[in-house]
Amino acid sequence: MPDTDSSYRILGVDPGLGVTGYAVLAVSDPFAEPRLVDGGVLRSNERAPFEERLGELHRELSEIIAALEPAVMAVEDLYAHYNHPRTSIIMGHARGVIFLAASQAGISVHSFAATEIKKSLVGVGRASKAQVQRMVQQRLELDKLPEPNDFADAVAAAYCFIDRTIRRSGAAPAVNQ
Amino acid sequence: MPDTDSSYRILGVDPGLGVTGYAVLAVSDPFAEPRLVDGGVLRSNERAPFEERLGELHRELSEIIAALEPAVMAVEDLYAHYNHPRTSIIMGHARGVIFLAASQAGISVHSFAATEIKKSLVGVGRASKAQVQRMVQQRLELDKLPEPNDFADAVAAAYCFIDRTIRRSGAAPAVNQ
Repeated sequence: MPDTDSSYRILGVDPGLGVTGYAVLAVSDPFAEPRLVDGGVLRSNERAPFEERLGELHRELSEIIAALEPAVMAVEDLYAHYNHPRTSIIMGHARGVIFLAASQAGISVHSFAATEIKKSLVGVGRASKAQVQRMVQQRLELDKLPEPNDFADAVAAAYCFIDRTIRRSGAAPAVNQ
Repeated sequence: MPDTDSSYRILGVDPGLGVTGYAVLAVSDPFAEPRLVDGGVLRSNERAPFEERLGELHRELSEIIAALEPAVMAVEDLYAHYNHPRTSIIMGHARGVIFLAASQAGISVHSFAATEIKKSLVGVGRASKAQVQRMVQQRLELDKLPEPNDFADAVAAAYCFIDRTIRRSGAAPAVNQ
């Protein structure tokens, strides 16, 4: 598929202070498989002060948004992690600067429950990380398993936005998954 | 006390998505009472999307930092709020963009336990919000009680930095509080 301006781009993000996964999917025909424009992970320097790590994450993600020009951002809801409060609070900081990068670029953020993302991609809400990786590999026709899983989870979030928003608002019924 | 360039300015912040308190204290002589340069609260629009509220908070705090030129930022540790996970996670987002504003301005962030801040100001770690307000009023010689308490808490965080860092590293012994 040629890289045309008519494609609608979704930036999926899997937020974390240490590792943030990201993936941009491009949709031209809402009922065909989207195309992976770019993706990977952002890693912050563990030895740097907390505020500098947040600065690094914000700067790098802002650069990705400027370069790849997504129309929207899709992320997982944080509220699944109540049982790990410290991790959730730290991830909240990372998520804050990620949301900010979206806001500053004028793109809206859509968040989905973890179970909704997994169900949308794999068909079951309690899918394992490995199942998510395999399904991402299959749907994007990747040569190997998407690694690390933070990248695969970012793809999954973007897929969920496509399934839940674009396809549901389309004129034709949603395709089977 | 004249507003000289030789004063060391501390920005105290009490982070929140809806209401963030801030206060800039200026220290010329580390053993005299600091001077309140400016302070108040930032309120975000409750009806705006989450990412826009974070954008608003980040922009306004960045403007305050640019205008008042603090050397450091002092905040309360978030970890006291494990019993309210949802509130803590949302506050984590606000805290993330606040830390980012500091990082982007090149100022370091120092965080203190809530009990440490209260003990430093009031003398007891379990002081009430009203006690913090009264002590802030007394020390800054304000005509009336500092309102809302988010502002008073921001002053308290800045005081804690002064007591714990500047005074302890001074050549003379710390004054009684």
